Amino acid sequence: MPPMQHSVSEMMARVRAARPLVHQITNYVTVNDCANATLCAGGSPVMTDAAEDVPDMASISSAVVLNMGTLNARTVESMLAAGKAANDRGIPVVFDPVGAGATPYRTAVARRLIASLDLAAIKGNCGEISVLAGLGGEVRGVDSASSCDGSDAVRSLSSETGAVVAMTGPTDYVSDGRVSVALSNGHPLLECVSGTGCMVSSVCGCYVGANGASADSVAAAISVFAIAGEVAAEAAGGPGTFKPLLLDALYNLDGGRADAALRAA
Amino acid sequence: MPPMQHSVSEMMARVRAARPLVHQITNYVTVNDCANATLCAGGSPVMTDAAEDVPDMASISSAVVLNMGTLNARTVESMLAAGKAANDRGIPVVFDPVGAGATPYRTAVARRLIASLDLAAIKGNCGEISVLAGLGGEVRGVDSASSCDGSDAVRSLSSETGAVVAMTGPTDYVSDGRVSVALSNGHPLLECVSGTGCMVSSVCGCYVGANGASADSVAAAISVFAIAGEVAAEAAGGPGTFKPLLLDALYNLDGGRADAALRAA
Amino acid sequence: MPPMQHSVSEMMARVRAARPLVHQITNYVTVNDCANATLCAGGSPVMTDAAEDVPDMASISSAVVLNMGTLNARTVESMLAAGKAANDRGIPVVFDPVGAGATPYRTAVARRLIASLDLAAIKGNCGEISVLAGLGGEVRGVDSASSCDGSDAVRSLSSETGAVVAMTGPTDYVSDGRVSVALSNGHPLLECVSGTGCMVSSVCGCYVGANGASADSVAAAISVFAIAGEVAAEAAGGPGTFKPLLLDALYNLDGGRADAALRAA
Repeated sequence: MPPMQHSVSEMMARVRAARPLVHQITNYVTVNDCANATLCAGGSPVMTDAAEDVPDMASISSAVVLNMGTLNARTVESMLAAGKAANDRGIPVVFDPVGAGATPYRTAVARRLIASLDLAAIKGNCGEISVLAGLGGEVRGVDSASSCDGSDAVRSLSSETGAVVAMTGPTDYVSDGRVSVALSNGHPLLECVSGTGCMVSSVCGCYVGANGASADSVAAAISVFAIAGEVAAEAAGGPGTFKPLLLDALYNLDGGRADAALRAA
Repeated sequence: MPPMQHSVSEMMARVRAARPLVHQITNYVTVNDCANATLCAGGSPVMTDAAEDVPDMASISSAVVLNMGTLNARTVESMLAAGKAANDRGIPVVFDPVGAGATPYRTAVARRLIASLDLAAIKGNCGEISVLAGLGGEVRGVDSASSCDGSDAVRSLSSETGAVVAMTGPTDYVSDGRVSVALSNGHPLLECVSGTGCMVSSVCGCYVGANGASADSVAAAISVFAIAGEVAAEAAGGPGTFKPLLLDALYNLDGGRADAALRAA
Repeated sequence: MPPMQHSVSEMMARVRAARPLVHQITNYVTVNDCANATLCAGGSPVMTDAAEDVPDMASISSAVVLNMGTLNARTVESMLAAGKAANDRGIPVVFDPVGAGATPYRTAVARRLIASLDLAAIKGNCGEISVLAGLGGEVRGVDSASSCDGSDAVRSLSSETGAVVAMTGPTDYVSDGRVSVALSNGHPLLECVSGTGCMVSSVCGCYVGANGASADSVAAAISVFAIAGEVAAEAAGGPGTFKPLLLDALYNLDGGRADAALRAA
């Protein structure tokens, strides 16, 4: 892993000082956790998906996060409208293609959003990113069916789209098409809670909103969340108590501790 | 603050004995917390928003809560239908104008609901209530951008609408147009959890449903929730663990303790 | 109670080994808890409700769960489409008729789903199942207004529909039309948390998906959840802390302990 140009603690401090407003069109399964992860990471969440509302809300935000977990015809149009309003003003858009590859509809919507919008970052799991990079990959429901060496996939999808691309899993891969980063913080309990992937995307929105979109800022967001997971796991009795402890850890995480805990793969 | 005519413990006992059915059309971000806050406060929540369903459900409820957090064209019509069914039967309607002032659409919908329905209570934050009272105010996303002396705003909006009006924040202001109350219970962690404002509206639904709509019953609901927040903060490690502890505290809160903890601003 | 043909621990082991993909069209109030209960029980949840998506997703699932908590015209059509796709492939469908009997719309939709689909299991509370069995029963919002001896109701609705039918409450009744089972695990705190009934339906999806639909597999799912509730209650301070502890207990539950704790009514 090439060294990051900016320390995690530096980027974390910028998020906490700026308190970026992050407009999120996301799924109704994990939306509450996304809102709380945003708050605990130092951002300010706003969730709205009405066609009449999203261009105005996106325009006053520091970043827009589009997550297609429970997509439907209405909200896909709202994602496009929010994304375009953000693009018009140079506001970064983070995309989480939940379940791309699992069904034809999900793959088609993901491709349509990628084709229609100028995305600052795309974050998915092994299966989703592999499918979108055209490298195959298996998706079962909304979970990746396998883990994989993602360095090729993230570099390839980044080159194609111009977005910073991240693939999360036991090892996290991030690329801006030139620089690639591989990280290995985290804990198995993160896979036992619904929505931790979505929460990472929300935290990416905070970091990209306050620091600009770069491999560094996306990697910092992913790492901060994964390190909070390591801290939370120490006291958790299972997935249920892990989630509130994860939010506590994200909220309380010290910058110096994050820098020290960062683990290259 | 003029003394409340009824003690908090008296009104709390009435909620717990009556177990009011509170029909809520609310947002998908915080709806689970609203349901659990309703249960822990002593009410029985029912969330339904289908046009075919809401008039019947509103008609058998003790109170209706309308929260426009994730409004859309369909649910706005359902809010109007539920509100009208409640109005026809004298069932109190509580309105939470989430994000009014943040976008033109939200402000317009809030004004439409206020114009179309006979509202028993309106509860918002500093920005929302100030905007609706015609006093300016700044709203950033769904959070108030500032705190303010709200006594003028609540009195003014109450006089205009006939509703009991509450503005929550570090100091809470409640007015029925004549009597005004200012309260200062609470804890900073309440601002670090998504949906605490929505949960207060749900608890208002319980108190108004069991005690009738008055400055007293709305102030009691706000205070009970804020005092539960004080209790929860004692054991919380951050916003994540604070939320379950807040629900526990709301559920376990002793009436005498609530009366003693009540703090006038 | 006639002895179950298969032990709970046997069926639990099969769920954990198979990790069944459970496609759920459910309500936005408790959907996050449903997802986490599915994970903690050993399954893999996927929630999607778009007409364009549900036939494909249902077709690759081990079970489909339809829960009409926050039904609307769009999602009712999606429930029918998902259910039909599952029926075509012999994938079991679990139905939770939330609030049937509370309003005419809910009762009508429940009857329509029962008439249109080949359901593997139906799980409701006393009021819902009694109403659908044509035995009267009172439903208040989405809560049962009363508890009752449900043995007649479950047997009758099972005979009529061919589904395994379960009625949960202080005593749980399960029937496949011939064999009936009555169980009495659980804890009063389960009634103080929104969505525990929905979570049971999700766990039924896991057990039916991995073990096939039978009175045994549905009874095992209900019992595992109820026993987890007993374990969680030991450490809970109220409904707020009970929920994460319930998920922990479901995740950690030992098969032998479950077999030993099983209590016939």
